[in-house]
Amino acid sequence: MIGRVNHIAIAVPDLSSATATYRDTLGAKVSQPQPLREHGVTVVFVELANTKVELLEPLGETSPIAAFLEKNPAGGMHHICYEVDDILAARDRLQAAGARILGDGTPKLGAHGKPVVFLHPKDFTGTLVELEQV
Amino acid sequence: MIGRVNHIAIAVPDLSSATATYRDTLGAKVSQPQPLREHGVTVVFVELANTKVELLEPLGETSPIAAFLEKNPAGGMHHICYEVDDILAARDRLQAAGARILGDGTPKLGAHGKPVVFLHPKDFTGTLVELEQV
Repeated sequence: MIGRVNHIAIAVPDLSSATATYRDTLGAKVSQPQPLREHGVTVVFVELANTKVELLEPLGETSPIAAFLEKNPAGGMHHICYEVDDILAARDRLQAAGARILGDGTPKLGAHGKPVVFLHPKDFTGTLVELEQV
Repeated sequence: MIGRVNHIAIAVPDLSSATATYRDTLGAKVSQPQPLREHGVTVVFVELANTKVELLEPLGETSPIAAFLEKNPAGGMHHICYEVDDILAARDRLQAAGARILGDGTPKLGAHGKPVVFLHPKDFTGTLVELEQV
């Protein structure tokens, strides 16, 4: 069912410092920061040869990554996003298998403008999993 | 400098259960478990279209992932591995930039039999980074 790794998301307390680390120290190609107000994050895309890393900094008062950064003040790997062909079929298959979808189970438009769902970390080896229809 | 994402490593307390989750619930292709005694882990490779996830379970009394699982009993994302062309050049560039290499800085043979170094999470946004020469 799952296809490519679309991205690995890393939550960071300081986007400009994290971007410099990836660009200057690790020598990777990075995007300009993009504020995504409806998602409560500002994102920088680190473009790698086969996938991308997304550096996420909280934006606004109710950022979905705020609690994670309180627990992990230096930042850390926040979630992994796998591509699927059909988000509704994926959701139904997961629910039938007993896996929990976060929220009400309805796909939302994600940071790339495509439908996504998030899966409960407790059902996926402690890892927050995003599925994105591509 | 960094090239492809070689793998994302997820530490898990129960490899057989984690493998079933990736194979049966997420529908991914998984390998047989491979004990790597010299690395203190048993690994299952989850083969995705563009990269792989490695599920790691502690093996032996002094596994390098034991402390992580004590802090994260359900498991979680443990490190991300980027490919480099020249591990010594990468190491020297990172050290010149002030980044800390774990251990004595000498590349070791990693789980794939290729030279690797690990970088200090505090220098990389709270994320343990492995570099592998390919």
